[in-house]
Amino acid sequence: MIATPQTFRFTEPLKLRSGAMLPAYELVVETYGTLNADRSNAVLICHALNASHHVAGWHAGPDGQPLARSEGWWNNMIGPGKPVDTDRWFVIGVNNLGSCFGSTGPTHTNPATGSPWGADFPVVTVEDWVDAQARLLDTMGIETLAAVMGGSLGGMQTLSWTLQYPERVRHAVVVASAPNLTAENIAFNEVARRAIVTDPDFHDGHYLRHETLPRRGLRIARMIGHITYLSDDVMNEKFGRNLAPTLPAARGLLPPEGADPAWGGPAPDRAALLDAYRYSTQDVEFQIESYLRYQGDKFSEYFDANTYLLITRALDYFDPARDFDGNLTAALARAQARFFLVSFTTDWRFSPARSREIVKALLDNRREVSYAEIDAPHGHDAFLLDDPRYLGAVRAYFDQAVAGTLKGVAA
Amino acid sequence: MIATPQTFRFTEPLKLRSGAMLPAYELVVETYGTLNADRSNAVLICHALNASHHVAGWHAGPDGQPLARSEGWWNNMIGPGKPVDTDRWFVIGVNNLGSCFGSTGPTHTNPATGSPWGADFPVVTVEDWVDAQARLLDTMGIETLAAVMGGSLGGMQTLSWTLQYPERVRHAVVVASAPNLTAENIAFNEVARRAIVTDPDFHDGHYLRHETLPRRGLRIARMIGHITYLSDDVMNEKFGRNLAPTLPAARGLLPPEGADPAWGGPAPDRAALLDAYRYSTQDVEFQIESYLRYQGDKFSEYFDANTYLLITRALDYFDPARDFDGNLTAALARAQARFFLVSFTTDWRFSPARSREIVKALLDNRREVSYAEIDAPHGHDAFLLDDPRYLGAVRAYFDQAVAGTLKGVAA
Repeated sequence: MIATPQTFRFTEPLKLRSGAMLPAYELVVETYGTLNADRSNAVLICHALNASHHVAGWHAGPDGQPLARSEGWWNNMIGPGKPVDTDRWFVIGVNNLGSCFGSTGPTHTNPATGSPWGADFPVVTVEDWVDAQARLLDTMGIETLAAVMGGSLGGMQTLSWTLQYPERVRHAVVVASAPNLTAENIAFNEVARRAIVTDPDFHDGHYLRHETLPRRGLRIARMIGHITYLSDDVMNEKFGRNLAPTLPAARGLLPPEGADPAWGGPAPDRAALLDAYRYSTQDVEFQIESYLRYQGDKFSEYFDANTYLLITRALDYFDPARDFDGNLTAALARAQARFFLVSFTTDWRFSPARSREIVKALLDNRREVSYAEIDAPHGHDAFLLDDPRYLGAVRAYFDQAVAGTLKGVAA
Repeated sequence: MIATPQTFRFTEPLKLRSGAMLPAYELVVETYGTLNADRSNAVLICHALNASHHVAGWHAGPDGQPLARSEGWWNNMIGPGKPVDTDRWFVIGVNNLGSCFGSTGPTHTNPATGSPWGADFPVVTVEDWVDAQARLLDTMGIETLAAVMGGSLGGMQTLSWTLQYPERVRHAVVVASAPNLTAENIAFNEVARRAIVTDPDFHDGHYLRHETLPRRGLRIARMIGHITYLSDDVMNEKFGRNLAPTLPAARGLLPPEGADPAWGGPAPDRAALLDAYRYSTQDVEFQIESYLRYQGDKFSEYFDANTYLLITRALDYFDPARDFDGNLTAALARAQARFFLVSFTTDWRFSPARSREIVKALLDNRREVSYAEIDAPHGHDAFLLDDPRYLGAVRAYFDQAVAGTLKGVAA
């Protein structure tokens, strides 16, 4: 499935929760499948920190064929015949404001100055994103969504949809999410932000004007993120205490396997060298280090630092119970949607207990709720992976519950 | 109790596990209590990452009185009448090689160059520290220790004592420790190290020659550390999602309570302002952020960056089962000591499961082992705190088991 992004331009300013006003802005969108005649089969997908409107399919290369490494981030979930079946549903992916993947954000030009927004881009919240998404649907002529769905921060947007526009959402599918961040969650975000902000190349957030990027800070931020996305178990299984195998060769300590005999010298005991500590504080010694450095390097090449600050802050700020003295049941009383929540046993970033808080608050309000706690080893990352029970549960929910309301039949 | 550090100088080079040789070096030591006539009541305390020889008591100010903020790091555990009672035991605290609290380390002069060692200080391991401690005891004329005791990294040294010098240790008290680090533990260390090493003020570890310090990196490292020392529960209880209360005042958004009426303007709703989000990506918003920044700032003023790298690497490298194909039971077969292990239920850095691995391996070897799993909310930090069950268990072990063998009576 080839996906083609479209850009929607909005000229009416958007009033943000901070009190600031975002002037004209753009949202980049992809859609998959076909909107039906009564416009009742639309499914909105909300993205998490490091994702975009490019939810499913592939982008086309110059030859019209799928471009390598261009797969949508939820392509295992969404597409023809997939759990969210684009033969039946009209699926919408939208890049959020403040992002760095096309929609208006800190790397774009601030019309007031003619320079990139940088750190002057206004703080955006989950609620602001939902407002912008609602306007997008207005433009597309979609009054009611068959479903809103998202994982992690995307799950927070999904939950917020049911509170901000309760009459516009039939089903809410909230995966690996939470009703707010814990102190520990905020703490990890804060360390990541401090790493970025204190990078000398950050220049108070106006690094683009200085023609540089705070790559060091972004690398640290991403490494911290990766630790929290994985479970201790899966890290032990994947990396354990294994030493990085290619390094002695890379450092010339060891000839590559099958190397030119001209390498000379006495044949080293290859296995022993591969297995020996190198006793260094700065070089990579363990595989987990190599993995994290690679992830950090990759991220620092494509992700915008101000976007990282904005999106982690949106996570920190989300807390629908805040206006109800912390009472989540009272906060969720407005919701009218039917809910499906999914959590993963080894997710310590957004643990099952956090999903159960939402389930309980909805049940207190006598809402219809399904809940699946998936026994998966992969930590928070599980929501993006191919767990058959997880994908099967989402498929069943869409085929039965969501399709059921589409036909006007109780699910 | 006033404590006075002493310096021991060693002129015979120490051969390190890395193969490097440390030339003449010094160890800074404190002792508490009196060594008995047959030199059988010595208890060695091994320190963790951020600690020193100053285990108990207070340092004296110019007037001979206890100096403010000079309390030993385990002063609740060790002293006259305390669980490790210095009226009975001769307690030794020793600062490890590579540290920045007096013993020879990266901030000291490299005799080969006349400049500070900096990043050229050799990599030291838990085993090297234990060797250096054993030499210290030789110098002090102590052949056999009544007990070795330590928490966290100190527990690793304690365990290693029983393997390197099995005949010299009667009792080993291993608190909140592990037989090695998990991949996740190493990952957190690695992120902290990368933050330090990529700080432009690190200068390849020779920042002292550049008359600067990599404070940014140290701050980040310490913030990460603090998150892993605390439990999610205790963070929620202590900080939750509370906003940093003093900030609106500090920013002039709000007059101080009882301020000069000349502040002028309409009286703001103080409570509402204190409770309002300020919508900033860089300013402190939540109390947890303020706490972490404070801890990071404080640490960066007194801790040496190269020491941080060395000590976290010693943690990474410790793995007594490594030479036994990962078989901990085989690795611990050498131990002759009696063991007391303590873990804390909410410690996710060195979880009870890790202590239980040691207990199991010792039991497999038919060693005498006592084990206490303390139900405490404070995470890894609990080993330094005043939990009465914990302190009571250590007291009982010393009063009964350790004192029992001292008298030649089976405990």
